[in-house]
Amino acid sequence: MKIKKLKQLLIKIFKKNGLGNVHSSISANALINAELVGAYAHGLSRLKMYCDRINKKVINPKPKIKVKKISQSISYVDADNSIGFVAADIGIKKAIENAKKTGIGLVAVKNSGHYGLSGYYAEQAVKKNLITMIYTNAPPAVAPHGALKSLFGTNPICFGAPTGSKIPFILDTSISMINRGKIRVAARNNQKIPEGVALDKFGNPTIDAKKALAGVQLPIAGFRGSGLAWMVDILSGVLTGGNHAGKVKDPFDDFSGPQNIGHLFITFKTNLFVNNFNNRIKNNIKIIKKLPKIKGIKEIMYPGQNKYIRFKMNSKKDINISEIIKKDLKLLMN
Amino acid sequence: MKIKKLKQLLIKIFKKNGLGNVHSSISANALINAELVGAYAHGLSRLKMYCDRINKKVINPKPKIKVKKISQSISYVDADNSIGFVAADIGIKKAIENAKKTGIGLVAVKNSGHYGLSGYYAEQAVKKNLITMIYTNAPPAVAPHGALKSLFGTNPICFGAPTGSKIPFILDTSISMINRGKIRVAARNNQKIPEGVALDKFGNPTIDAKKALAGVQLPIAGFRGSGLAWMVDILSGVLTGGNHAGKVKDPFDDFSGPQNIGHLFITFKTNLFVNNFNNRIKNNIKIIKKLPKIKGIKEIMYPGQNKYIRFKMNSKKDINISEIIKKDLKLLMN
Repeated sequence: MKIKKLKQLLIKIFKKNGLGNVHSSISANALINAELVGAYAHGLSRLKMYCDRINKKVINPKPKIKVKKISQSISYVDADNSIGFVAADIGIKKAIENAKKTGIGLVAVKNSGHYGLSGYYAEQAVKKNLITMIYTNAPPAVAPHGALKSLFGTNPICFGAPTGSKIPFILDTSISMINRGKIRVAARNNQKIPEGVALDKFGNPTIDAKKALAGVQLPIAGFRGSGLAWMVDILSGVLTGGNHAGKVKDPFDDFSGPQNIGHLFITFKTNLFVNNFNNRIKNNIKIIKKLPKIKGIKEIMYPGQNKYIRFKMNSKKDINISEIIKKDLKLLMN
Repeated sequence: MKIKKLKQLLIKIFKKNGLGNVHSSISANALINAELVGAYAHGLSRLKMYCDRINKKVINPKPKIKVKKISQSISYVDADNSIGFVAADIGIKKAIENAKKTGIGLVAVKNSGHYGLSGYYAEQAVKKNLITMIYTNAPPAVAPHGALKSLFGTNPICFGAPTGSKIPFILDTSISMINRGKIRVAARNNQKIPEGVALDKFGNPTIDAKKALAGVQLPIAGFRGSGLAWMVDILSGVLTGGNHAGKVKDPFDDFSGPQNIGHLFITFKTNLFVNNFNNRIKNNIKIIKKLPKIKGIKEIMYPGQNKYIRFKMNSKKDINISEIIKKDLKLLMN
């Protein structure tokens, strides 16, 4: 399907479900971006879930979002259970505005939901020549180190920086060995998952995607990854007034109430301390790319580079819609 | 040796090497703290190295440290190649002051050196009821993902938060599978290192500490850990005006000039968005500790908890001085 046509279709679907023009457009753009960068687990595969949550009144289609000024640098957003895309869009825009004004921005969001890819919002800040750090938590998927039960989300750590070139440095890494969305897609398509990334509900290693969804995902690097996940839970949940300690509901399975996810956006200018940041980072990347490489590696890529290349390539083509998604679209249009 | 006596001895040694009263005391405290928390690789084993660097004029014993105010929240420290402990002490104190004034503090330091444990500085901020994030880079030890040569340091990621109890939440995790300092201690004591943490200089796995020091340390979690290390290099090096891209000199081996390490300190108040942070985090920790545990695990510990317990326990005892360190102390007193 042509990207333009898909966008119109998505907007139509969101509007049919009660979202306003602007919110529908923001949400459609976020889903299409996920498809274009190849993050299918955050793309169209979630459309029906979002609509279901609106219809079951656990996403508020007409939220009264409040932005409270704490200081010139610091703002607090109560998203009133809006769709996560809209809450995050307001959050990052406010963080950009604050950093442009004072050098640094800190914005907390509460009463939000799953917002897709952190990197998508990081790109917005980097385009405005800012460095950014973004934290959000997620439904239980990863067991704390020493525990036999999932509690932390895949809690991504996201960092973005300008590179002095078109392709931004965007690190957007979940602290689980594999994204939960990828397991979900594998389960839907009856595919296996890699070894060593998950345990089943009895605590045994598994490569069965469905068993992994019912079990426990493993954090990267044992206690280190567990600690990073805990950090994200504190920053995006405890600090912001959002849900935390395993209380974020699974958006696919639990319609008993809103997710109340919290997000934290930190932004700052690149020229606070040096006046040649762009040259410095260009040089940094150049030196690293020149290192001797492991056999079979053509180029050392910085985080975000592959995603950008996929985005550019896919933007020139039609978007491939799987049979499962086609069914969803048909259902949602009726 | 009694802690008090050791402190007097260390101060005497630093003063003999040209450091002033205050800087000697700050440095002695940092080294003793490392011993008390059991981080021996950052403790007395480094004393001779620091003195050697002062004598070879690559650490400045009488630095003219400049603190520049960028805004009420943001400061920039030129440490004039002071010993790292002193630069970091000024950096974190300024970051605390700024956050207390405006809610958030951002402090960059350049022309500094190895400062020991990030967690030691994080504790200072947490004691003042602040959340803190601290970044510093280090000499090449870890290969970027895809590269056959070390370039990133073990670049720790440090995060601290109050817990509403005496024991702070301090995550201080290097992005390498093992701390370089631990390999160094193992090499000194002719001990083996664990499997899977390092390659020798030919790219082969090794458990020989000396071969590992000559080779490459592996990052946690492949490209994810490599990306985190790159992030730290940007935040603490590229942004601050410090060395980066593998240019930080090894303090033990390279006396051809100062290290010019950069640090970044971020601090903010816990009550910016919620007025009951302490209760929220207490509850967070309580819920996680109550999870079912893996066989053999008595208690799920949060980052920093074990270190605190070791510190309390060791603070009541004399400090054990190894034969190698005794030799160093004797040498440095003559």
